Order: sequence, then structure tokens, then C-alpha cells
Amino acid sequence: MDFEALFQDQLDALKQEGNYRVFADLERHCGSFPRATNRNEGETRDVTVWCSNDYLGMGQNDKVLSAMEQTLRECGAGAGGTRNISGTNHHHLLLEQELADLHGKDDALLFTSGYVSNWAALSTLGARLPGAVILSDALNHASMIEGMRHSRANKKIWTHNDPEDLRRKLAECDPDAPKIVAFESVYSMDGDIAPIAEICDVADEFGAMTYLDEVHAVGLYGPRGGGVAEQEGLMDRITLIEGTLGKAFGVMGGYITGSTALCDFIRSFASGFIFTTALPPAVAAGATASIRHLKVSRFERAQQARRVAQLRAQLDAVGIPHLPNPSHIIPVMVKDPVKCKMISDMLMDEWGIYVQPINYPTVPKGTERLRITPSPLHTDADLEHLVRALTDLWSHCALSRAVA
Amino acid sequence: MDFEALFQDQLDALKQEGNYRVFADLERHCGSFPRATNRNEGETRDVTVWCSNDYLGMGQNDKVLSAMEQTLRECGAGAGGTRNISGTNHHHLLLEQELADLHGKDDALLFTSGYVSNWAALSTLGARLPGAVILSDALNHASMIEGMRHSRANKKIWTHNDPEDLRRKLAECDPDAPKIVAFESVYSMDGDIAPIAEICDVADEFGAMTYLDEVHAVGLYGPRGGGVAEQEGLMDRITLIEGTLGKAFGVMGGYITGSTALCDFIRSFASGFIFTTALPPAVAAGATASIRHLKVSRFERAQQARRVAQLRAQLDAVGIPHLPNPSHIIPVMVKDPVKCKMISDMLMDEWGIYVQPINYPTVPKGTERLRITPSPLHTDADLEHLVRALTDLWSHCALSRAVA
Repeated sequence: MDFEALFQDQLDALKQEGNYRVFADLERHCGSFPRATNRNEGETRDVTVWCSNDYLGMGQNDKVLSAMEQTLRECGAGAGGTRNISGTNHHHLLLEQELADLHGKDDALLFTSGYVSNWAALSTLGARLPGAVILSDALNHASMIEGMRHSRANKKIWTHNDPEDLRRKLAECDPDAPKIVAFESVYSMDGDIAPIAEICDVADEFGAMTYLDEVHAVGLYGPRGGGVAEQEGLMDRITLIEGTLGKAFGVMGGYITGSTALCDFIRSFASGFIFTTALPPAVAAGATASIRHLKVSRFERAQQARRVAQLRAQLDAVGIPHLPNPSHIIPVMVKDPVKCKMISDMLMDEWGIYVQPINYPTVPKGTERLRITPSPLHTDADLEHLVRALTDLWSHCALSRAVA
Repeated sequence: MDFEALFQDQLDALKQEGNYRVFADLERHCGSFPRATNRNEGETRDVTVWCSNDYLGMGQNDKVLSAMEQTLRECGAGAGGTRNISGTNHHHLLLEQELADLHGKDDALLFTSGYVSNWAALSTLGARLPGAVILSDALNHASMIEGMRHSRANKKIWTHNDPEDLRRKLAECDPDAPKIVAFESVYSMDGDIAPIAEICDVADEFGAMTYLDEVHAVGLYGPRGGGVAEQEGLMDRITLIEGTLGKAFGVMGGYITGSTALCDFIRSFASGFIFTTALPPAVAAGATASIRHLKVSRFERAQQARRVAQLRAQLDAVGIPHLPNPSHIIPVMVKDPVKCKMISDMLMDEWGIYVQPINYPTVPKGTERLRITPSPLHTDADLEHLVRALTDLWSHCALSRAVA
């Protein structure tokens, strides 16, 4: 059997569709985020990163780095085992307490990534609650979809952010079945935000539990960075809040928070939690420092919000079309996969600006975009430079302008 | 719907079976591994860890720690994105080159954990090779089982480490189906080692690709720490070698190595690779330093082998039964779940020795054990103390001795 040919055929097809991914080789520089060195075919150049999910630049925060350094020197590099077999470090427990407090829950449980937390929690809930039905927002993240798929539970998909459609789908379910309403607060690609209160109202009508992914919101929304549910005073209405330590908190890892029994249930039955090496203690300590900082410091969130508003206004002024939304994510719409990749390449080559093109299958065909994430660290000059570059390329590529 | 009661019922059942897990709260001390502080109900005590998967103590190696510190201060805490969207750091590419070289392959691909690498690689191969059949050793790890399950490919289970049964199962398959023979080199719980050459012979007869999990072998076997396949000169006969950076290499993360097309195929299609934040650059740099060290230093492996042989001889001398195997894992057999937990508790409370009890479902009922992993850092005094403790507890618990 010629496996090489089997692999190559599918890669060739991907290339022909224009969906083959090439990763940018980057090295961010601590102390001068969002600047980075890009290496390409033996050449290096300085670039400004405009598409990082280290939304607040906490990855270069000195409290975070110092906590990691200290723990590295005290406890070593890795955890040395699964949580059950020698791998639970005191720093994991401190972080879990911090996370439970952040979301006003009794307990929390750490995972190696946000992907694994969604996959493991949803697959365990779906598989172990007899007759469970998962009601999933149509635009939920790949990690949630894979978790539901893995659980083999019944699944119903409701129209994105539409509580009325959720009600119709819930009404179709067996009244005695355990029902799980799974959705996100901030959706990564469009930057729109779920009507959490309305969704909770509908879930309550049918006695369903609520599962909320806040990975693009934790650290960023709410007075203590607890996410959109905190901002809207709704944390107590969510059964399980899932989040990440790898975006606004700037480190790595994922988690869930909820009741003691819920966390213990996932802890005790989730294969993806049980049979994997725990996070390095230094990673846990860095995440704890980051959360503690963002619980009290509002500077980063306020400055980010200013930069986001500023960039939107500047894009509007020159007619660069972007999706309106209430979040920190600015999707600049190109609506053509070839032009989207071309603009991204020209931004990098001619302007020293790095924004990864987002094409199908990450977004639907015809909605190809540059997903821009302004941070508190981007300066006025950075914004002007970006807008000048986009204006130039928009003319160059004969793309249509937004109507003012 | 009373979800709390649903969770609690299953937890209560687990407790009644004696299979409820309680994690030991530990803090290892850099510079004095295998020593750690254990916290329990407000008390702290010093313990010696005898069940770590940081097999060689590389988690406290100064080259590893220095590389991590330096990269932390240069590149920051987290990667800031998925590999595709701003998260590829130059240190990831250096590590992938190092891993490809370690296993004599064209390319390598990093994952956030060994669990994810198995799950993502097997689920992608099984799902995307049309009509694929996966032939799985009966004792393969949970991460491989979940990957195969997720792929929904046809699966055939062959008797553990039995090439003849593998041949029978391969003969039953459609000759035109792509076939994947998936197995491990060192099996974690029994410490036995697969007959790799014979398995490759059988796979070749049927044109099957070979998938080898070396997580309990990389860093530990072979002249450069390439694993059992390197030790036996068989790396070129394995299509895909999977490994971890979180055990003998002392850090965190997982990987696969293989042909360029194979790695590119998994890179391009595996959801668990694409949609997750990349490893922190400092973690990648630490792993690279660890691999480089163990490629040239044989001291750790030789010293570990001495400690393993010493402990086996001392256990034999006092008649403590342990499973014979050719690896570094010493399963001391208690064969009773209650006594296994009790001995573990007494070792901790009375002797300051931490060995986690391994009960069902991690091992079959009736084969409950203490899984002991001697490291190059355990001293003669540590060994004597452990053997004295076990001798005492064996009498105390009226456990049978091995016949000399």
C-alpha cells in the first residue's frame, strides 16, 4: 500500500483548493510586544503582530514571568506525572482555587489546553449522563464539536445565537432526558456575543444545564476579568464555565469551573483529564499570577477597548469594511480566498505587518477575512501604519469599500 | 433535572467500588529530586517520590531550566495563538528538527501532550484514509483507544505482543484496505516490551503501516535516547513514531515523527493539532535542551539501569513479588485493591515514601500494584529505606512472599 501517495493526494487537493496552511515562523520579543522577528527562506525581518490571541500582552507581564521563573527554579520543568500519579503540584491546586473564585464557583479543574477541556468535559457529560441530549449552537468551536461527536450522545444544533430556535429544539426533546445547552460567549471569528440571559431563561424553562465557553472573554470582560457572564452578572446561571489560560491570560492550559460534584465528576471520569501529564508547575504559577493581576488591574482592558474603538473608527474613515460586533475582534472582510492570502502576504512583505488570512474551512466560503486583534500594546503609530497599509492594498487589489 | 444528584450518584458508586482517586498534593524540590513536600489536611511532610514519570530527573537538569528561563525572558510566557495564527515560534521549529533527527525521520510535529498526539494522529489517519482498518494491540493506551474510537475506522484488536495473532487479524482484512498496526514499545503498567521486529515483519507481509508509541521509552533506550526502536536498529521500519516530552525528557508536550508527507498530512487535517494554542516557546526550548543532552549523555540511562537492577535484586532477596520485565518499570504486585491503597497510605504516613496505588480500571482487577520507577537520583539509602518499609508492611498486611 503506497501510504505516501495517499497522504500526498489529499495534500495536493488542499493546495488546489487554496486551503493549504503555511505557518509564519515568529519570535516575539519580551518587552517589545507586539513586535516579533519573522524568518522566511533564510531572511529575517521585524514585524508587528496584529492577530495574536495574547490579547492583553500578558505573555510579557513581569509578574507572570517572575512567577514562572521562580517556580521553575523551585519545582522544576515538568510535573513528572499525571494528576493521579505523582503529577499534582501544589501550584495546580492554587490555580484551581483562583479559577473557582474568578467565576464564583465552588471548584475548578485544569486541563492541558482549552481544546482538551471542551473535548473532555463535553464527551464525558454526553457519554455518562444516560440519554443525554446536547443542544449545540451552530457556530460552536471545533473542540466542542469533537467532544460531542466523541460522546455519541444525541445532538441538536440550534441557530446561532437564537434563543427562540433553542426553545423549539428543547421542546422536541424527551422531557425526562438530561439536556445540556452548549454555547460560547464571544465567537472567535465574527466577534459577536451570545445573548446569555435569554439562553439561560430558555434553558431554565426546560431544566437544562448550561455549558458556556468563555475562552475569548476571560481576562477581557467583567470587572475582574471573569468574562461576559461576569460582566452581565450571570455567572450563577451557568452550570459549567469553560475557559483558557492561553489567550488573555498569556500562558497555556484550559479549565472548567462549576459545582464540586460537577468538577469531581469530570475529574473522575474524563479520559482526557486522567491519562495525561499535568501542566508544568511553572505554567500553573504563571497563570495564577496573570489571573490575580487581571482581577484587580483594569488598565489593560480599558486600553485595549480604546485601541479597538480607535481602529474601527479609522477603518470606517477610509471605508475598509469590517464586521460590526461588540467585542475586541475586528474581522476585516476580504471575501475572496486568493485576495485574502495575497493581502496578508503583501502586508508581511511590504509593510512588516503580520495578520494571518482566515479562509475556509475556518470561516464559510465567501467570508474570507483578516482577523485583527488590537492590544493595549499597539501604539497610535502602529494603528496609523496598519490603516495606511490596508488603504493602499485595498486600492491595489481593487476591493470594494464600505459605504460610509 | 437534578444534575447534582446525577453526578453524585456516579461518584458514590466509584467510592463504593474503592476506585475513587485522591490526588497527593506535592511540591518537588529542584536540586533535591526525588524529594518533595506533601501537604495533607493542613500538615506538611517531606517525602521521597518513587512513582514519577520524570524517569531521569531531567525536570531539574540545569541545561533544561536555563534554556526555559532564557526563552521565557526572550519570547514571553505563552505562544499567543494556534500554530497557524501567530503561534508558531522559532523554538517549535528547532524542536521539531531535533525530534526528526532523534528518530531518523524526515519530519516531526508537536502537540500539546502525548495524549493529544496519539488521539489526533490516530483519529486523523483512521478517518481520512478511506476504508482504513486499525489493528490495535489489546493493551494500547487510553489515548490511542480514544483516537481510534473517534476515527470510526474499523478496528481489530490483536492479542497483546503476539505477532501471530496480528498475522491472523491482518489476514482477515480486505487486501486493498489501508491497514495501520498500532502498538507501544514499553507498556506502562507491566513494563513489558513489544517484539518490534516480528511485528514489523508481519506488517510488511500485508503492506500495513506501523504506528509505534514510545512514550515510556524515549530518552531511556537506544544510544541517543531514541527509544526501543533505536536500541534495536528498527527505527526505519516504523512509519510513525510517537513520543512525549513529559516523561524522560522532563518537560511537557507530545509529538509524532515520520515522512514529510505523513507529518504534513496530520498537520493539515488533525483538529486536535489545528485548533489549539501552541506550546509555550520556553517549554519547546526546555525540551530541545533535554533531548540534546540525552543524545550525548549516557550517564542518566546507565545509572537508572543500575538502580533498577539493584532494587529488583533487593526485592527478590526479601521475597517481595514483582513482575519480571526488561524495562525500568517495577510493578510490585499486591493483587488486592484495599491492601494496595492501605500499603500506599502507610508508606506515605509512616515511612515518608510516596508510591501511588494502581487499581482497576488502570489495571485489571486482581492485579493491583505499586508501580515503582527508580531513577538515577535515588540513592543506596533510598533503596534500603524503601525495601525495609515494604518488608515491614508485607508482614503487617499478611501478604504472600514470592518464592525465591
